[in-house]
Amino acid sequence: MKRTSIGVGLMGLGVIGGQVAKVLMERADQLAEQVGCPVVLRKVKVIEPDLARPLAKAMDPKLLTTDADEFFATPGIDIVVEAIGGDDPAFGYQARALKAGKYVVTSNKEVIAKHGVALWALAHRHKAGLRYEASVGGGIPLIAPFQRDLVANKIKGIYAIINGTTNYILTRMAREGVDFATALKKAQELGYAEANPRNDVEGIDTTYKLAILATLAFHSEVRPEDIHCEGISRLGSRDFQYARELGFAIKLLAITKQDNSSIEVRVHPVFIPEESLLAKVTGVYNAVLVEGDLVGRVLFFGEGAGPLPTSSAVIADVVSAAQEIALGAGDKLTWQVKPGISIKPFAELVTRYYLRMNVADRAGVLAQISRVLGDNQISISSVIQKMTDSVAQTAELIIMTHPSQEKAMRKALDELEHLAVVKEISNFVRVEDIQQ
Amino acid sequence: MKRTSIGVGLMGLGVIGGQVAKVLMERADQLAEQVGCPVVLRKVKVIEPDLARPLAKAMDPKLLTTDADEFFATPGIDIVVEAIGGDDPAFGYQARALKAGKYVVTSNKEVIAKHGVALWALAHRHKAGLRYEASVGGGIPLIAPFQRDLVANKIKGIYAIINGTTNYILTRMAREGVDFATALKKAQELGYAEANPRNDVEGIDTTYKLAILATLAFHSEVRPEDIHCEGISRLGSRDFQYARELGFAIKLLAITKQDNSSIEVRVHPVFIPEESLLAKVTGVYNAVLVEGDLVGRVLFFGEGAGPLPTSSAVIADVVSAAQEIALGAGDKLTWQVKPGISIKPFAELVTRYYLRMNVADRAGVLAQISRVLGDNQISISSVIQKMTDSVAQTAELIIMTHPSQEKAMRKALDELEHLAVVKEISNFVRVEDIQQ
Repeated sequence: MKRTSIGVGLMGLGVIGGQVAKVLMERADQLAEQVGCPVVLRKVKVIEPDLARPLAKAMDPKLLTTDADEFFATPGIDIVVEAIGGDDPAFGYQARALKAGKYVVTSNKEVIAKHGVALWALAHRHKAGLRYEASVGGGIPLIAPFQRDLVANKIKGIYAIINGTTNYILTRMAREGVDFATALKKAQELGYAEANPRNDVEGIDTTYKLAILATLAFHSEVRPEDIHCEGISRLGSRDFQYARELGFAIKLLAITKQDNSSIEVRVHPVFIPEESLLAKVTGVYNAVLVEGDLVGRVLFFGEGAGPLPTSSAVIADVVSAAQEIALGAGDKLTWQVKPGISIKPFAELVTRYYLRMNVADRAGVLAQISRVLGDNQISISSVIQKMTDSVAQTAELIIMTHPSQEKAMRKALDELEHLAVVKEISNFVRVEDIQQ
Repeated sequence: MKRTSIGVGLMGLGVIGGQVAKVLMERADQLAEQVGCPVVLRKVKVIEPDLARPLAKAMDPKLLTTDADEFFATPGIDIVVEAIGGDDPAFGYQARALKAGKYVVTSNKEVIAKHGVALWALAHRHKAGLRYEASVGGGIPLIAPFQRDLVANKIKGIYAIINGTTNYILTRMAREGVDFATALKKAQELGYAEANPRNDVEGIDTTYKLAILATLAFHSEVRPEDIHCEGISRLGSRDFQYARELGFAIKLLAITKQDNSSIEVRVHPVFIPEESLLAKVTGVYNAVLVEGDLVGRVLFFGEGAGPLPTSSAVIADVVSAAQEIALGAGDKLTWQVKPGISIKPFAELVTRYYLRMNVADRAGVLAQISRVLGDNQISISSVIQKMTDSVAQTAELIIMTHPSQEKAMRKALDELEHLAVVKEISNFVRVEDIQQ
């Protein structure tokens, strides 16, 4: 039966929800043309404070409700757009919509990262659909490539800058030589970092997004807690100085790689070659490099957040869902989750390392340190030694290693800390020799 | 009715067709999982020389035919993959398949650029579908973004490196300081340029691809002949030297921009800021920067050609078509072409220019040249003068202008050529101040 309209219910009228409502109303003609019939906003679930917003005041009051039951009882809602954010009550609302056979479109990375597979199963059971393009990378197409464009490929790896706040902080640290606290403060002043920045700077937001991408890429559930996560707060301005001297940039990367038997999933600061494209991704921009066995390496770049880019992705999902509903054929995406893939223990990671340490400035020190590394099967690829304090007679020693096992490196670091000549292990950062 | 299988007919068993056949056969399980039923290769239309290929010899001879009528009479073909290339007979075959209600998947940029809108109408009339993701940028998702991911946007502009051959040549010229002929020869030796390189180096291949992208972006037919096209053969090694001094890279860009009343569509060498991401796209890689009013600027990067990346896109299209056929709901893509958009005459282009000329090395020359430019409302932003020949007493003069109209610049160049002090207008290149 040919549909005469598709109804949308919107949950949340904050920064994202408000922009989605605007596009739905202001571009109604353009969307109707794409779908083949009008896409009509039928109800908006708000919270009390939203009612004071200019947009809410400009809307027909009958469109607005603070009552979830009233929202779900509204007739003619085919698609529920959840733009509330956070786990609760958003997850419950999404599940309720799916159980009622409605399509769900969301930008909520936390819900999808934590409950995506369960929601997907619900959608399938109730012949509904779940769309979440906006949950990673704002308006950059990142979910669609895995669900559609790269389906012929076996995904070998993903290397992603998917947190604008940390990339902005790292960019300022690299360009201006300032320390983490100063760069964070600037980011907060400009609204790029929240008052409590922990979720961003400690990598938690990034693990949500990586869990979503890895689950899609490998057709197997990867949960946020499966991901080894380290933030950027322990990076010092000197690390950027040495990185530059050695030809590297420092980025917070979300990395996942597949080998024959298992996958790596990790989020931590990484040295990458300064000539790589990812090294050129500065400020609040996001970029995701995907390696497929057929397509080779493809990179997607753009603004990773903000109401306009996010609405671009949300509305694309609404149009896609509406087209399917209009055709009356059910969800085209037959993406499946297979039984659990094995996740490689982080201790078994093999990578190169950058080490910065404060050592006694006297003969034989490098020999002692080299011996500890060598005893742990870690070989050195290059060394820089700088005088830092002539009074204390200590020097700063920078070591780049050849590929070594994380477990061995941890053991070596522990042993180095106990050497009398080592005053401090100032930092260590993993190295990813990304080409392009 | 639930389908038990989807049939594919393949036309062409060359480099691309052969790889597509391989993926269809070797990844049958993976594809069946995506589609919900097996995707079966039912017939391959070959030409006589293909029969000698190892792949053809390894296939069941009953699968192969050199006879197009036999191919089209084969029962159970739902999707025709055209991998022949060129205009004729590929266009005729695509039209024949669509008229028979079959979906067409193709990597053929020439056919889509020249006949895309006609084929799209045929598909619509016969309730079939047309897919051509592989026609631009190999395996990089570039068609899908316009048809799906960016549908909420008004597209403001596209800046694209979509010809690997010319990008390879320009990269060598920039890095090694060699002239065009030397770089072309290297490209030919490595198989990156054909024996007759005209289609690539003169920008013709790029106009096909830009016609496809612009038609999608603006929902209005843009034909290859609507596009102003200049190739890279007149660039000299000195242009690269001065570009670098001025902080620019030189790329062959496909550019289209939309303002309120008309669009620009053009292909020519361009100076772009060396810090922009597009400037970092080297070798045979492709990249497309799209600016939408909601999404901002997004960039897609990857290998633009080759059998593996191309097969990635072709197979994704086959899966997408097969999913729709399996659901029995008809083509979801309701993309429409509206009445003709107005194309801005090239003479009305406003841009900055780089000019390189050989002039008499004596007092008052710059004043004369400045006067000609000023009389044509062209103002100078910077000048470099270098001594080139002390015997002939000539100097090389490099001028960067502020934004000026093409028409005025052409008139000024004509007048400059008639000045006694101007020995030669060596080159002029337009400048695009791309941010990011």
